[in-house]
Amino acid sequence: MKTRAAVAFEAKKPLEIVELDLDGPKAGEVLVEIMATGICHTDAYTLDGLDSEGLFPSVLGHEGAGIVREVGAGVTSVKPGDHVIPLYTPECRQCKSCLSGKTNLCTAIRATQGKGLMPDGTTRFSYKGQPIFHYMGCSTFSNFTVLPEIAVAKIREDAPFKTSCYVGCGVTTGVGAVVNTAKVQVGDTVIVFGLGGIGLNVLQGARMAGANMIVGVDINPDREEWGRKFGMTHFVNPKDVTDLVAHLVALTDGGADYTFDCTGNTTVMRQALEACHRGWGTSIIIGVAEAGKEISTRPFQLVTGRNWRGTAFGGAKGRTDVPKIVDWYMNGKIEIDPMITHVLSLDEINKGFDLMHAGESIRSVVVY
Amino acid sequence: MKTRAAVAFEAKKPLEIVELDLDGPKAGEVLVEIMATGICHTDAYTLDGLDSEGLFPSVLGHEGAGIVREVGAGVTSVKPGDHVIPLYTPECRQCKSCLSGKTNLCTAIRATQGKGLMPDGTTRFSYKGQPIFHYMGCSTFSNFTVLPEIAVAKIREDAPFKTSCYVGCGVTTGVGAVVNTAKVQVGDTVIVFGLGGIGLNVLQGARMAGANMIVGVDINPDREEWGRKFGMTHFVNPKDVTDLVAHLVALTDGGADYTFDCTGNTTVMRQALEACHRGWGTSIIIGVAEAGKEISTRPFQLVTGRNWRGTAFGGAKGRTDVPKIVDWYMNGKIEIDPMITHVLSLDEINKGFDLMHAGESIRSVVVY
Repeated sequence: MKTRAAVAFEAKKPLEIVELDLDGPKAGEVLVEIMATGICHTDAYTLDGLDSEGLFPSVLGHEGAGIVREVGAGVTSVKPGDHVIPLYTPECRQCKSCLSGKTNLCTAIRATQGKGLMPDGTTRFSYKGQPIFHYMGCSTFSNFTVLPEIAVAKIREDAPFKTSCYVGCGVTTGVGAVVNTAKVQVGDTVIVFGLGGIGLNVLQGARMAGANMIVGVDINPDREEWGRKFGMTHFVNPKDVTDLVAHLVALTDGGADYTFDCTGNTTVMRQALEACHRGWGTSIIIGVAEAGKEISTRPFQLVTGRNWRGTAFGGAKGRTDVPKIVDWYMNGKIEIDPMITHVLSLDEINKGFDLMHAGESIRSVVVY
Repeated sequence: MKTRAAVAFEAKKPLEIVELDLDGPKAGEVLVEIMATGICHTDAYTLDGLDSEGLFPSVLGHEGAGIVREVGAGVTSVKPGDHVIPLYTPECRQCKSCLSGKTNLCTAIRATQGKGLMPDGTTRFSYKGQPIFHYMGCSTFSNFTVLPEIAVAKIREDAPFKTSCYVGCGVTTGVGAVVNTAKVQVGDTVIVFGLGGIGLNVLQGARMAGANMIVGVDINPDREEWGRKFGMTHFVNPKDVTDLVAHLVALTDGGADYTFDCTGNTTVMRQALEACHRGWGTSIIIGVAEAGKEISTRPFQLVTGRNWRGTAFGGAKGRTDVPKIVDWYMNGKIEIDPMITHVLSLDEINKGFDLMHAGESIRSVVVY
């Protein structure tokens, strides 16, 4: 079949909107009509050539929502017509990681996914006979895409695609870090470093969990208003204080129960750790750091009871947890609509990247 | 009163055995006759002048066992004749830390303890009229010492002093790191870096907890025999492998559930983290690093599910947990006797430091 797609033919160039050939789903795979897709920093990170493992030509995009149109042999968990969210972190429920009950980092198709291929080692996309790589196992910048069955979460049919697509990455990453990884409890104190799309979702996750003091930290003063919309109780601009860590420790009466780095900056990651409460404070790294950058601290920080952790896809098991997060959205426990600041057509997709680079959007969504 | 004591008059000099003046216990304090004391690396670290906060002249020693001989006003939890272990990490059961239920790092007397003083800001020891500092709130290198009531754990009277004194630091630090901090479970895989006194206690803690594979790592081949006595199932000498982390990850089928650094070497701390299993492995820093040294790693290690933590005094709440550990010893769940390699008189205490520096002892104990 044919599908319209925004193709990244090479790094550091705008995406090109072309018609691709798409092979139908093989055994264990599903064909999904993508109805909407968010544009995430990770797409830009790859397109900008910063990911040393980025592959070209490829169809980027990993934050989508759509409808199953066809299923391959042996597929039992979804059927044509089902509404789904593609999962860049699949959930096979069979591998050592899934069976451990201790992590969401399913390893079933990790090797091929990292090579831009389907589990059988081939690609479904081609352009004029040339293979085009998949991206993060999703490739939602294509109107139609093929996914392994274990990489789609079935969601309720009354959830709008335009907003629920954001659950495919940003919402789950932020809210999930609070709920699944940190397991924030009622009355806890939380500090969130970086109030972009992920940070705002951490804020609203902390609000949902009943956190008491929810401190937001950002060098952009405009983000204070944004943060307060999603549960932030205190705002700190690092430019306004001489010693950020000391200021935060004082503000939170000894440090936070949980801190979250949503910046990807390794210096901030250290500040986030050191702003944790002695004895039990836990800092969670969400942001992806530049290649080659390392985090560091004095071991004394850990010996005196601080914990340093990280999270990917908000610790969410995709097929199990993503439908729940969509429910939370539909039931009003979390918000998504105000975060979708720009709605674009596929032809306008490069504008979405421009808005993100300029810091002018929280989330731009392409609606097919 | 008078007491014989080994006094550190200045750094980098042998201890001097002298007779000190000792004031009796004030309100909330107890006088303890120390019956036995271990010689720990931390005492040597201070005596060698490596601790920038070390105070002189002082009475070192923090790993003792003895008998309460007198109590000050208001003391209710112990009485003369009770057998006790001094606690350098007290347990007041009143401060924010104690009440949190999430840490053993009681803060009740932290400020004065760090200054070598009793909670009222004075010292009980003096020599020819000159005040002598307390050390870690214990000063067990004195036949008699004064301690806050909240800094003694009452233990059973049939426990020998010569061995149970080791519970005052090394045993609790190692076994407690497994039981209280890591909470190792039956079937877990554990790697222990550094098989000195702490490492051996981590090994036997893991054995008691029912760990499946217990790997010991040490550059000293003589430690293999020691490790196997306390539950180690596999030994790795880093000098025998080209890539230690890769070797350990392969040996443990993907990495350990828990790793413990008992070396104080920040390079080893990084290896310990990176030898953890993706998705859930937790590395616990026990060793105290040199001043100014920092730990570092790629944040990717944490984002993919490894946890970096630390522990002090094995996460043990002294008055609550130390008596239990003595019970475990007396009931044969853990061993201490084979670890006490040298028994000395107070006059021979400097020999204990020499043996430790030469790596010829697991634990030297002074019996009064």
